[in-house]
Amino acid sequence: MDQVLQYYESHREDFQNRLMEMLRIPSISAQSAHVEDIRRCAGLVRDCLVRAGLETEIMDTGGHPAIVADTGPVAGDGPVVLVYGHYDVQPEGDLKLWDSPPFEPTVRDGAIFARGSADDKGQMITHIFAAECWMKTVGKTPIRLKFLIEGEEEVGSENLEKFIVAHREKLACDYVVISDTSQLGEGQPAVTYGTKGLVYKEIILHGPKQNLHSGSFGGTVANPGNVMARILATLYDADGRVAIPGFYDDVVEIGADEKAKIAAMPFDEAAYLKQLGSPSLFGEPGYTTLERRWVRPTLDVNGLVGGYTGEGASTVIPAQMTCKVSMRLVPNQEPGKISDAFDKAVRRACPEDVRLEIVQHGRAAAYVAPLDSPGMAAAARAFEKGFGIKPVFMREGGSLPILPMFKEVLGADSILMGFALPNCNLHGPNEFLHVRDFEAGIRTSAHVFAEFAGM
Amino acid sequence: MDQVLQYYESHREDFQNRLMEMLRIPSISAQSAHVEDIRRCAGLVRDCLVRAGLETEIMDTGGHPAIVADTGPVAGDGPVVLVYGHYDVQPEGDLKLWDSPPFEPTVRDGAIFARGSADDKGQMITHIFAAECWMKTVGKTPIRLKFLIEGEEEVGSENLEKFIVAHREKLACDYVVISDTSQLGEGQPAVTYGTKGLVYKEIILHGPKQNLHSGSFGGTVANPGNVMARILATLYDADGRVAIPGFYDDVVEIGADEKAKIAAMPFDEAAYLKQLGSPSLFGEPGYTTLERRWVRPTLDVNGLVGGYTGEGASTVIPAQMTCKVSMRLVPNQEPGKISDAFDKAVRRACPEDVRLEIVQHGRAAAYVAPLDSPGMAAAARAFEKGFGIKPVFMREGGSLPILPMFKEVLGADSILMGFALPNCNLHGPNEFLHVRDFEAGIRTSAHVFAEFAGM
Repeated sequence: MDQVLQYYESHREDFQNRLMEMLRIPSISAQSAHVEDIRRCAGLVRDCLVRAGLETEIMDTGGHPAIVADTGPVAGDGPVVLVYGHYDVQPEGDLKLWDSPPFEPTVRDGAIFARGSADDKGQMITHIFAAECWMKTVGKTPIRLKFLIEGEEEVGSENLEKFIVAHREKLACDYVVISDTSQLGEGQPAVTYGTKGLVYKEIILHGPKQNLHSGSFGGTVANPGNVMARILATLYDADGRVAIPGFYDDVVEIGADEKAKIAAMPFDEAAYLKQLGSPSLFGEPGYTTLERRWVRPTLDVNGLVGGYTGEGASTVIPAQMTCKVSMRLVPNQEPGKISDAFDKAVRRACPEDVRLEIVQHGRAAAYVAPLDSPGMAAAARAFEKGFGIKPVFMREGGSLPILPMFKEVLGADSILMGFALPNCNLHGPNEFLHVRDFEAGIRTSAHVFAEFAGM
Repeated sequence: MDQVLQYYESHREDFQNRLMEMLRIPSISAQSAHVEDIRRCAGLVRDCLVRAGLETEIMDTGGHPAIVADTGPVAGDGPVVLVYGHYDVQPEGDLKLWDSPPFEPTVRDGAIFARGSADDKGQMITHIFAAECWMKTVGKTPIRLKFLIEGEEEVGSENLEKFIVAHREKLACDYVVISDTSQLGEGQPAVTYGTKGLVYKEIILHGPKQNLHSGSFGGTVANPGNVMARILATLYDADGRVAIPGFYDDVVEIGADEKAKIAAMPFDEAAYLKQLGSPSLFGEPGYTTLERRWVRPTLDVNGLVGGYTGEGASTVIPAQMTCKVSMRLVPNQEPGKISDAFDKAVRRACPEDVRLEIVQHGRAAAYVAPLDSPGMAAAARAFEKGFGIKPVFMREGGSLPILPMFKEVLGADSILMGFALPNCNLHGPNEFLHVRDFEAGIRTSAHVFAEFAGM
């Protein structure tokens, strides 16, 4: 282990430079203009894995390619561990809000600012570098290690299920390790054991064939903007509860034990609110902030656009109005059933004076892993060694569509080891990853391979 | 008159070329980037008036400049007529929807396609050319003619009231003639005797300090998109009635006589619907389509934007959501009172979990002119001579903030002579003016000066 950590120590600058190189590629999976960047980024992930000494291939998924790697069999009876991550990133959003360009990684105050620094390039790559530390010194990893790094996580991993089914032998494992979540707070690393599900929809209302003068034609045809607001307003109430009929039918309340553990979590509500910057905290009555975040389903407007959105005033009736809406689900809510209930509610709320179109984007089930497995204990010990701090066990409001698939297809539970901070501006401007957490992540990963072998 | 029309006949191509030149200037008053284009366009309007032989000056209004011109006193006891128009235009909107670039005027199927062709450069300029026809042949116009061509009509003419007040002597007149409306339909020219008022607002909701990951943070703070929809939905009901308390308090129902005249109007509902392209006609119950268009107040969402609006899916809670909303008012509704009622309703509907900002854009009162004035009769005769068709008298759903100001400050009623077609794509893509209507407009204007003199 000393050799391994020595290799890490002498390659810190090199590891950071290699991450920076990957962050320079705008591998935005949602936008077709970036398909070449996606391919370039996949190539770079492969190069890293090859350099670490793993058998590596770029594989077709039907969508953006995935990279699969394997150390091959290893002596001993340790588990086979599959590291999953993704090299695609969210769109950069409004460039004006970034302090430095999203795809020109910049180190400020000890943190790397770039789209993908935390989600997920900067976290995913720690495991590749940890494998390299082992391979270049000991000549092997303590356990058989596999990698699956995909390029469609940010668009719902739609091709991955059939990919995993088709390659279930190649990907067979006992545990999946993923670093695509966050610590609970600054200096408090966390193992995440549950994620929410997701149903992502786009409602498009078509009215007149083009934008109309709202004076000359107002009052004679339905305005898709007016109609959209009325439809949306039927989907949730003023208190923050979802109002789609049947939405809560299958939600199971968490047990008193988990409720108590969440209540005991070190969580500073005032600091959290300050970090987010809203006037106040808000959400479904009867639940604490952390409960709403982790164990209650939600519905959010993600984007709305239509009509005149430029400077000043322009009096048009929009020809079209588009709304992106997503719902986060909790265990036992079935995405297909929720999707149908959503469509039904929207169709019922939509008058025939506009033409309604509903587009389905991502869809994923929620996931919860058992807390008492040997793998969870190994991960906790690795954190203690890598970060020097005992991790907490928590849930996450985000979705990882892949987790329920891994369980179903490979029979493997997932262990989520989060190195980024919760305020790392995931999906927003100025996304960052602290250099110290990136490096603690590499050390923790190097340790977790050994801890798995020794369990 | 023969000489005058002969001059017109020999300058048809020249007139069209000069209009094209003006249409090439993107004089968009709403966008500060176009302030130089505005100035350039004002200069071109001045040049046209100088060429016509009028004493002309570009005058400061505090906002975009106005052009004022005068033939000086004329023998005879005809009225003094002020021609009002505007040289500023609406933003071009989505360029992809234009068949030819908005500021590269193109003649197709006998029509000039360009932003501003109908609204209002192509209509306004007919009167300048008609004055030129008189001045270059007879050496004078039959009546004393003044011009006021402004550059802020599309942003609510906010500086014009104090301009008119400050220059009431210079602008003194008996009638105002304006061509900024449309015919009733193809081949059916119209004198418009009433317009709606306008109150234009922008609601901005501020939530978290930047877009948040809707998984990691969903359910813990209010989503400005969700809140916006609920606020908007309180402002109108499903039937198309405005639901702002007090909104209809001062609305006066039209008399049986006007109701009968509107019902007798040659209006093809099916053709109208086909032109607009919506699935069906829609609006306030209890009123016909033309009544809703002309004599009933409305509320329309003009634009909505916030969060992720690009391709595919991005799971964000928007930091901000913006909605532009305008209300069209009818005579006796006071814009200030309606503005206050709107603000009050929005403030009441908005929870404290987001920060609310309301921006006021345009504001204008409705206007109705007496139908039995000698000026109205003169305009009707001019149409008969210029177009060869008797005009109908109608109202208009659009707003001309200047009309009530002219009445109040100058004591002059306005006569609206519309040359454009109602489907001329005002404020939308592919705005056009038929060359034949542009030319009939010049002839009608040349006639109306003589008809005024003879009344």
